[in-house]
Amino acid sequence: MVSTSPMAVPGFRFAGLPAGIKKSGAPDVALLVADEVVPCAGVFTTNRIVAAPVTLSRDTLMRGGNTIRAVVVNSGNANACTGEQGAADARAMAAAVAEAVGCQDDAVLVCSTGVIGAPLPMEKVRAGIGEAAGALRADGLGDFARAIMTTDTRPKIRSVEVEIEGRTVRVAGASKGAGMIHPNMATMLGFVVTDAPVDPLDLDALWHRVCHRTFNAITIDGDTSTNDTALLLAGPGEPLRGEALSALAEAIEAVAGELARDIVRDAEGGTKTVALTVAGAASHADAAAAAEAVALSPLVKTALHGEDPNWGRIIAAVGRSGAAFDPEGLRLAIGDVVIYHGAWMGPGAEARAHAVMTGAEYAIRLELGKGRAERTLHTCDFGPGYVRINADYRS
Amino acid sequence: MVSTSPMAVPGFRFAGLPAGIKKSGAPDVALLVADEVVPCAGVFTTNRIVAAPVTLSRDTLMRGGNTIRAVVVNSGNANACTGEQGAADARAMAAAVAEAVGCQDDAVLVCSTGVIGAPLPMEKVRAGIGEAAGALRADGLGDFARAIMTTDTRPKIRSVEVEIEGRTVRVAGASKGAGMIHPNMATMLGFVVTDAPVDPLDLDALWHRVCHRTFNAITIDGDTSTNDTALLLAGPGEPLRGEALSALAEAIEAVAGELARDIVRDAEGGTKTVALTVAGAASHADAAAAAEAVALSPLVKTALHGEDPNWGRIIAAVGRSGAAFDPEGLRLAIGDVVIYHGAWMGPGAEARAHAVMTGAEYAIRLELGKGRAERTLHTCDFGPGYVRINADYRS
Repeated sequence: MVSTSPMAVPGFRFAGLPAGIKKSGAPDVALLVADEVVPCAGVFTTNRIVAAPVTLSRDTLMRGGNTIRAVVVNSGNANACTGEQGAADARAMAAAVAEAVGCQDDAVLVCSTGVIGAPLPMEKVRAGIGEAAGALRADGLGDFARAIMTTDTRPKIRSVEVEIEGRTVRVAGASKGAGMIHPNMATMLGFVVTDAPVDPLDLDALWHRVCHRTFNAITIDGDTSTNDTALLLAGPGEPLRGEALSALAEAIEAVAGELARDIVRDAEGGTKTVALTVAGAASHADAAAAAEAVALSPLVKTALHGEDPNWGRIIAAVGRSGAAFDPEGLRLAIGDVVIYHGAWMGPGAEARAHAVMTGAEYAIRLELGKGRAERTLHTCDFGPGYVRINADYRS
Repeated sequence: MVSTSPMAVPGFRFAGLPAGIKKSGAPDVALLVADEVVPCAGVFTTNRIVAAPVTLSRDTLMRGGNTIRAVVVNSGNANACTGEQGAADARAMAAAVAEAVGCQDDAVLVCSTGVIGAPLPMEKVRAGIGEAAGALRADGLGDFARAIMTTDTRPKIRSVEVEIEGRTVRVAGASKGAGMIHPNMATMLGFVVTDAPVDPLDLDALWHRVCHRTFNAITIDGDTSTNDTALLLAGPGEPLRGEALSALAEAIEAVAGELARDIVRDAEGGTKTVALTVAGAASHADAAAAAEAVALSPLVKTALHGEDPNWGRIIAAVGRSGAAFDPEGLRLAIGDVVIYHGAWMGPGAEARAHAVMTGAEYAIRLELGKGRAERTLHTCDFGPGYVRINADYRS
């Protein structure tokens, strides 16, 4: 069972502490260091505008054959839209970590989240990195999780212990999201480590599959950031293969899935976490288009907030998505209540669906009846809080 | 100059009155009748789920070679997701009008807006049509405009008189939008009439071009309805050609443009009307994708509400749109204040942009620097009112 405990994972140490980047004095420098060079896979933002640390980390991973020693994260400043100086600062962060922990510069990945367009206060960042290197602990994941937060209301930590081929394997991680207050971006960061050994190429394939269903399957408002990054680090040693690797992938997906949903659960102004599945689509593209149209529709999201089983808004969103379906065959269930099946199922179904929607977490399932492709997205409602938080102009 | 007066247009009569479809007792049956069969062009919803009156009207126009005598509209009930009965009811509405005004059934178009999934109260509708036929007046456009409203806070009427080749030509119309309260749809209806004669094929081409820049260039929340319809009726006689037709098209676009922006101005919970232009795109598809990504971003829309010149949210939305551009060449102006040109233009520009955003209507212009394609969308902000209105569950 996945828990929220900051479980120690052999081979990894963590730290997180305040370095003065945030005016609030909250923790803002986080460090993750492996005892030796280990396999690492990364999934990065698809936004065309990419922050300096993302460009650097993507290059570093590629050049290093998907192996690294350490990851440094700062919150409070995204180092985005910062030009040449930003690129130099990201490299300087990697160099500072390399010096502090004793590795090559190109064995360090860098992540930043926070204000965009402003230069990093490098003196504070360097001092913070030095201090964090001295504070590394096997049980430091909680400190790490707190130091990567921006407007998150709580740290997001998940872990699980599983038996694979008679050996105890640990998977643990942290994530952050939620924050979109001007001029912050809605940056999502996710970090998962395991002591199970995995071949770097297998790890890369595994992480892309997992992220498609976890960190890339959550949607709060459809906006992607310049800094989104999800990293998976594995242990050294003889790599797992076959069924053992599949069992590990399952544990990693369980942890990453909860970390991703934790971001939705902490969404600004959101009060509901909804797993929306479009099934029976003619193609994966259709399933994705329909799921996105519904999950991002402000009319649907406000209806979720109002606990309103508004099937009209849902099917109208599918209708404009471009996905193939016959209106007569369309089937919509909220929880296990079928509310529409070619036609409205009546006031009794509507009342039962409304009862499901009073819960904090539930599922919505749409069957298009055209094929076998499906897509699940985790979305949230749109409450007055979202507008209040995001419409606030801090001049 | 386009005015809000319900100007009479020779050759057309209008009526609008309460028939009891709405519980409130507000007007809900509207009739538009031409003195003889005239050219008519229609643009309809692209949603895959299409209400019965849209299916009927689209077929009627096609079979009749884009000529009709009358248009009937009811509000309070969308006749959508109503199956065979809905199709029969739409035909019965056309037949009732045909009988009342003395024309063929297939010279009548039908539009409905309001609650979906519920059968039309046909007895009330028939009685209302009979009464409306007796109430037709040359100066009845105001009554017509009030009877097509759903959650609109005010009727939307626009007209203009122009001289074309020494002859006075009139263009007038009405629109409705805004309404999305469960279980209503966000239906947009637009009607424009002119006494200028136009060939039906020219009229169709002209209306599609105009709608692309008017009724299809407004976006409140990205949802399209099952009932969206925009109709243009012209006068009988020797058709205008060449420059005279271009002059007429300009007048029609002026009226349709204001009618479309009136819908944005009356958007639920909206307080700003923003003309967003993406220019310098490599293709029309790029321009449209970038404009839609920005215009529909909830983060951008809440920033508009907060009068917050949040260039980071705008360029991040462009960045995820898939449109080609170089971040270094990107130029963003709010009103005439350039706030970003490859980099942030500083606090002075930000303060001036904020001042522009305190106005109720202004323009935002993005230059991608990749080509000559451009797209303008008219969008609104996202205030607490939007959420309040749309999250209200009326059980």
